[in-house]
Amino acid sequence: MTIESLKRIYYFGKTRSEGSKDMKELLGGKGANLGEMTSIGLPVPPGFTITTESCAEYNQLNGTLPEHLMQEVHTNIEMLEQETGKNFGSENNPLVVSVRSGAAASMPGMMDTVLNLGLTDKALDGLATAFGNRRFALDAYRRLINMFGDVVMGVAHEEFESEFDRIKEECGAELDTDLDESGLEKLIEAYKKVYKTNTGEEFPQDPYQQLEKSIKAVFDSWNIPRAIRYREINEITGLTGTAVNVQTMVFGNMGEDSGTGVAFTRNPSTGENKFYGEFLINAQGEDVVAGIRTPKNIDEMSVWKSDIYEQLLETKRILEDHYREMQDIEFTIEREALYVLQTRTGKRTGEAAVKIAVDMFVEGHINKTDALLRIPANDLTQLLLPTFDPKAERDVLTTGLPASPGAASGKPAFTAEEAVERSEQGESVILVRKETSPEDVSGMHSAAGILTSTGGMTSHAAVVARGWGKCCVAGAGKIEINEGSMTISVNGRTFGSDDIISIDGTSGEVIAGPVATLDPELSEEFHAVMEWADEYRKLKVRTNADTSNDAIRARDFGAQGIGLCRTEHMFFEDDRITDMREMILAETEAERRAALDKLLPHQRSDFTGILTAMDGLPVTVRLLDPPLHEFLTHEDAIQQELADHMGISIEKVKSRVEQLHESNPMLGHRGCRLSVTYPEILEMQVRAIAEAAIECRKNGIDAKPEIMIPLIGSAKELSLLRTRVEQTIASINEANGDQQPLDIPIGTMIEIPRAALTADEIARHADFFSFGTNDLTQMTFGFSRDDVNTFLPDYIKQEILLCDPFQSLDTSGVGQLVEMGTNKGRSAHDNLKVGICGEHGGDPASINFCHNAGLDYVSCSPFRVPVARLATAQAAIKNT
Amino acid sequence: MTIESLKRIYYFGKTRSEGSKDMKELLGGKGANLGEMTSIGLPVPPGFTITTESCAEYNQLNGTLPEHLMQEVHTNIEMLEQETGKNFGSENNPLVVSVRSGAAASMPGMMDTVLNLGLTDKALDGLATAFGNRRFALDAYRRLINMFGDVVMGVAHEEFESEFDRIKEECGAELDTDLDESGLEKLIEAYKKVYKTNTGEEFPQDPYQQLEKSIKAVFDSWNIPRAIRYREINEITGLTGTAVNVQTMVFGNMGEDSGTGVAFTRNPSTGENKFYGEFLINAQGEDVVAGIRTPKNIDEMSVWKSDIYEQLLETKRILEDHYREMQDIEFTIEREALYVLQTRTGKRTGEAAVKIAVDMFVEGHINKTDALLRIPANDLTQLLLPTFDPKAERDVLTTGLPASPGAASGKPAFTAEEAVERSEQGESVILVRKETSPEDVSGMHSAAGILTSTGGMTSHAAVVARGWGKCCVAGAGKIEINEGSMTISVNGRTFGSDDIISIDGTSGEVIAGPVATLDPELSEEFHAVMEWADEYRKLKVRTNADTSNDAIRARDFGAQGIGLCRTEHMFFEDDRITDMREMILAETEAERRAALDKLLPHQRSDFTGILTAMDGLPVTVRLLDPPLHEFLTHEDAIQQELADHMGISIEKVKSRVEQLHESNPMLGHRGCRLSVTYPEILEMQVRAIAEAAIECRKNGIDAKPEIMIPLIGSAKELSLLRTRVEQTIASINEANGDQQPLDIPIGTMIEIPRAALTADEIARHADFFSFGTNDLTQMTFGFSRDDVNTFLPDYIKQEILLCDPFQSLDTSGVGQLVEMGTNKGRSAHDNLKVGICGEHGGDPASINFCHNAGLDYVSCSPFRVPVARLATAQAAIKNT
Repeated sequence: MTIESLKRIYYFGKTRSEGSKDMKELLGGKGANLGEMTSIGLPVPPGFTITTESCAEYNQLNGTLPEHLMQEVHTNIEMLEQETGKNFGSENNPLVVSVRSGAAASMPGMMDTVLNLGLTDKALDGLATAFGNRRFALDAYRRLINMFGDVVMGVAHEEFESEFDRIKEECGAELDTDLDESGLEKLIEAYKKVYKTNTGEEFPQDPYQQLEKSIKAVFDSWNIPRAIRYREINEITGLTGTAVNVQTMVFGNMGEDSGTGVAFTRNPSTGENKFYGEFLINAQGEDVVAGIRTPKNIDEMSVWKSDIYEQLLETKRILEDHYREMQDIEFTIEREALYVLQTRTGKRTGEAAVKIAVDMFVEGHINKTDALLRIPANDLTQLLLPTFDPKAERDVLTTGLPASPGAASGKPAFTAEEAVERSEQGESVILVRKETSPEDVSGMHSAAGILTSTGGMTSHAAVVARGWGKCCVAGAGKIEINEGSMTISVNGRTFGSDDIISIDGTSGEVIAGPVATLDPELSEEFHAVMEWADEYRKLKVRTNADTSNDAIRARDFGAQGIGLCRTEHMFFEDDRITDMREMILAETEAERRAALDKLLPHQRSDFTGILTAMDGLPVTVRLLDPPLHEFLTHEDAIQQELADHMGISIEKVKSRVEQLHESNPMLGHRGCRLSVTYPEILEMQVRAIAEAAIECRKNGIDAKPEIMIPLIGSAKELSLLRTRVEQTIASINEANGDQQPLDIPIGTMIEIPRAALTADEIARHADFFSFGTNDLTQMTFGFSRDDVNTFLPDYIKQEILLCDPFQSLDTSGVGQLVEMGTNKGRSAHDNLKVGICGEHGGDPASINFCHNAGLDYVSCSPFRVPVARLATAQAAIKNT
Repeated sequence: MTIESLKRIYYFGKTRSEGSKDMKELLGGKGANLGEMTSIGLPVPPGFTITTESCAEYNQLNGTLPEHLMQEVHTNIEMLEQETGKNFGSENNPLVVSVRSGAAASMPGMMDTVLNLGLTDKALDGLATAFGNRRFALDAYRRLINMFGDVVMGVAHEEFESEFDRIKEECGAELDTDLDESGLEKLIEAYKKVYKTNTGEEFPQDPYQQLEKSIKAVFDSWNIPRAIRYREINEITGLTGTAVNVQTMVFGNMGEDSGTGVAFTRNPSTGENKFYGEFLINAQGEDVVAGIRTPKNIDEMSVWKSDIYEQLLETKRILEDHYREMQDIEFTIEREALYVLQTRTGKRTGEAAVKIAVDMFVEGHINKTDALLRIPANDLTQLLLPTFDPKAERDVLTTGLPASPGAASGKPAFTAEEAVERSEQGESVILVRKETSPEDVSGMHSAAGILTSTGGMTSHAAVVARGWGKCCVAGAGKIEINEGSMTISVNGRTFGSDDIISIDGTSGEVIAGPVATLDPELSEEFHAVMEWADEYRKLKVRTNADTSNDAIRARDFGAQGIGLCRTEHMFFEDDRITDMREMILAETEAERRAALDKLLPHQRSDFTGILTAMDGLPVTVRLLDPPLHEFLTHEDAIQQELADHMGISIEKVKSRVEQLHESNPMLGHRGCRLSVTYPEILEMQVRAIAEAAIECRKNGIDAKPEIMIPLIGSAKELSLLRTRVEQTIASINEANGDQQPLDIPIGTMIEIPRAALTADEIARHADFFSFGTNDLTQMTFGFSRDDVNTFLPDYIKQEILLCDPFQSLDTSGVGQLVEMGTNKGRSAHDNLKVGICGEHGGDPASINFCHNAGLDYVSCSPFRVPVARLATAQAAIKNT
């Protein structure tokens, strides 16, 4: 296809509708759906969409519009003129359009919009005549100059604002709406001067020139920092640019019989199947989303205009039948005529996602696998977060809108930067703003919760917070925010940066001080989703748990065993750390054994507890992993205490601490290397496990321990240590006499690149493999997790890495080793059981990879178990 | 084959000769050669060899002799009896044998030997009669009891010695030889008592019982610690055990017409083609090797017994014609009859290896490729070591035998343990011993040189030292060693542990204090070998050099370019480190650039020097690699100086030092990661390289710089940085106007596992790869080179690793990544040039691997260049 023949514009209207909902990549979500809605007969003002590819071309051409583009724009405007009977720039019945951005992924508020485009001095008269309302036409024109100046030409909004204030004062007007026609005329002149002073040119009187500049501005907005940042946070990659939607204007601000609103076809917080939204009478589109005026609940529309309300409910029905998904729509009423301006899949909380998916299945809209695929697995964690205890005392200051559920306590932060900074220092902060705007996204992301004093359920703050599952109370109008003094006041009480407040995103309450929390009650729908997931998934889900409490919790969440029970934490408890240090400081094997003998009963009782909690399910215990110096301390007082306890000099303690120091402890004397040099540690731990299993058996518990040797790098290493483990178990079996001997599987972590590379040799000595992808990622990348933050942010900013490889498995590098390890391992050992126990085991994208790599199970932290159950099912469904 | 039919014993003698020199694995070197020598008609006393497999069986059976073995021994003894006309244990003409160990690899002195076996009270009389010499027979018998008691039964040698002393005193004898028959009879009785007291049993009067116990003792000696240690040091692996040689005794101690000696068919120090050896008159075999008596030079034999001397020269001729290799023989003269007891390939110094190989080629014994394969490539470094400056003043204390050439200075150490310990602490020590024994090998290995006061050119010390190419002066009889006071005295002068002495292994001089050294002169033969090597090798050899001096030296040694020019050292020089620190402490890019501007001219002139030295050859410059904190200091005074210099507070300096601290610097903010975050550093370095190349060009130098980006882990990283490098070069080309633009290849180190795994993607942005196997080994194993010594010795001891993977490439793990990286890289980029610049580039075994992996070049330190030239040729020859 030659450049000339490339189709860059898609029309939608009665004449023809060229786009459809499947063309999101090319037309953006908004453009694709405008075409789709037009096709299914919804009342959409006609217009056209310039493709995202054109945006990419524009950027490749360093900010030049592709040749022939404006020619195509002309053709499409002419089509619009024909369909509407209006003429672009005409002094009779002028065509007035909006210009909006719209990328393939939803990015609320990110892109700039220009309304009323096409108005000129000449067209102004035409508009006044056509609508029989000169004041309205003047108001529309001054809005255009302001918006075009600000958004397209980069003139500071304040420059226009101060002129507005000056003229209002001149005319004795208090509100914007008080300004009469002559006042507005003065304002237009003043705005034109502002425009000229700041841009060096006259406000364009050619509507095509307005359009061309606006299109460029939309394209440019794709690469402004806040847009890039939003894509970063939301991990939106692979898109080439934004589309531009040019659409006939309809006016919600034509008077008291007009209005505008946004709505969700179901409740996006709870998922309840009830039309949910807000509207403003006599207002233009962006007013609702920007949260400047607090809008009315959609229910009130049935009182205001019941026929329109009915039309909206019918629209909901048509859209849900068509899209089989909850929709988020924007609409405008122009002189009692309803227009739908946009529809898109509605953002929702995790709770809503679960309920909507299950309801849609029950209602027959979708099948079970679709329902499972609809729920972002990560969002399930929201349902597991604690809520405020309803019985706890609450010092309620005021109640705002329950914009995004959850419970958050923290200290107020007043700017996005402050929220980021204080959060990084470990504080829990509530970002408190009059309203939020796209500039605030990073602060919103950092904060524990968001509180706004204006704005509704569909305001920027509310929509973004719900998308992230972050707690938000919006429109708490009684709260006065004093950014200067860094305080908030409510009903005469004042709170500063050091006072804790709490917000309840479910009730909308704003509360003084912290509130006791409670584990959440899980809904029927949640349990249904978990059951359905279990029907489809192939991977088993285990948990990483080091205590019996964690084990019990994970089991409640559906864990099918423990994939990683770390033993090092057991040595840190008060009564044990001294024995541990004594062991480390010992100078002979005999001394070491004496100290280990003291640790043995503790380890045994820990294991007994965990094995009991997991009765009937496998428990993989990893032998001691960290370097010994991690158990020591540099604190003089504790060193002295230890020296006294052991009857040696503090110098000796210090010298041993010094001696154990390592340049790169990550690559040092740890893991199985400890077992090679100090076999007595391994023996003690194996003894504790085996004896615990015997104790469990006596209590009628079906204990299924598995012993995992960490940090194996070669077959000989594992063969040697396996023999030692087996000998220890054999000696316990022998001591145990007639009893059925213990048969404990012995396996290894695959966490060193060499282990994956030589997995065929290693597998000959292993009953199972468990990929330790945390360390494997460190060594495969050569990244120290403790130090990576000095350069990782630069790497993500410069798109060298698309995401943090410690959060989501690097499938092309580390993943290659996982596949190699699995395949080589199985080639040498048919029945080798293979799992993953790094943190990636709870990450849906990584789980999808593990499914395809043919692993047997994933293991993750207890709270991630439901996520993993769903993600494993999604992987199975997606990859059949 | 059933166990019963397994042939465990090979006979050699006139009756038949079953073994041959190709059966070393099965019969050990000694046994194979005894069979071979018998076959080619040399006068070898008949005997038989028990296979190494039998030893392996014995060890598998936990120290039980394989069934039927003793039966086979009987059969073979009977064959011997027939051939010699003697009878085992007979009171008439008894058969007396030696029992010796002999493995496939030579391990001098490592294994225990029993002589005169078969003597009993009864056979003693027979021997006396047969030889007509009762005193001799008695002496042989008392030696057997002593040796058998010590070696086979583990009775301390001192127990026998003190009895000997007692009886000598009783008899008024001063020397051993002063004891008459009745004295010897008393001694035999005393020895028998010692034997019984210590073993709980009588000295065995059944010769087969003696033999059985001896065979077991030889087998057991395979696994004694000093044997294991010797195999470790010499990296001898893959052997299953030692063979046992049972051979008719011949006696060199029959009187003044008898004797024993060892000889090399050529000079093992220099390679000169001259019979070389020593002998003792009226002595038994082990006396020469053990170095107890200082023997006579072999030349003196022509005076003593010229016909025997002629027979020996004829033997040399036969052996060299047959083996086409320099031989190390043991011989005995029994009453004027010559017997050859052993022949094996002679150990030699690097210098001798070169000369012998070239001479053997010239003499027509071998072809050129055999000559090249004969020289252990590593030994070439010996030829490159400095010697003492002949013009330097020498305070010569005494002159011993020039047992192994070289020049060493150090402080005396008096035990092997002391030598190991002090060497590990960084001291250069000379191990000073009366004589050395196998127990001393680790100390000998650690020491800079070895000095003995007794023992000859073929003593234990001399043979072992020559094998390692370590400097040794032997038999410096004037030196009195006082182990108690830890001093040596010579001619009234005394030297303690803190006094430096020097030894000249070429002249035999022992010198007080250090001596100035001189670069060695390289022999004609050395140059011939290098030329021959260049004819055969496929791999190019480059060098790792950071200064023009190193570059010149390496070029002299034949380097074909620089494979790794590290730039970090350039920043450490006095005048630059302050600027470097200023750059690191800078808080803005502008400040950083200002400091870099000051560094630029230094870098440029460094590069100009190196490029000039390598005129016409490629120079691969690696951009800055270490983490920035390596350039900072924790020293208060220097920090204060820097703070003053920069006009900032010392707290600021300290805080930046603190801020740059990393938990695992090896995996931290270094290598190309610095270029990602601080592109201005890369720009400065690239500018310095490019401007240096232009400057060289102006001087008529053909500068061929290549830019190497370290620590690349992903294609995107390299693509980004390559663009930055190209842009910088382009801007310099532009500034350079009409001149032919510089075309500098840009490549990367492959040193992170992920880089090898994704080499196909990375190769698209690289002109060359260079495997940085030092870091690649660290990350593939998860071993920090700085910390590995806490566990690596255990790993080698327990045979988890066969050698230090930082010394010799781990072919199965790290090597897999090298192959993968090479193949994937070439799959995406046909002409990709691939080299290696880790220290493995100078290791012959690793070079062999690189040859097979299809690399283009190896790069190593300047002194390793000749080694690499030879090793690359050997790899090419071996793998055709």
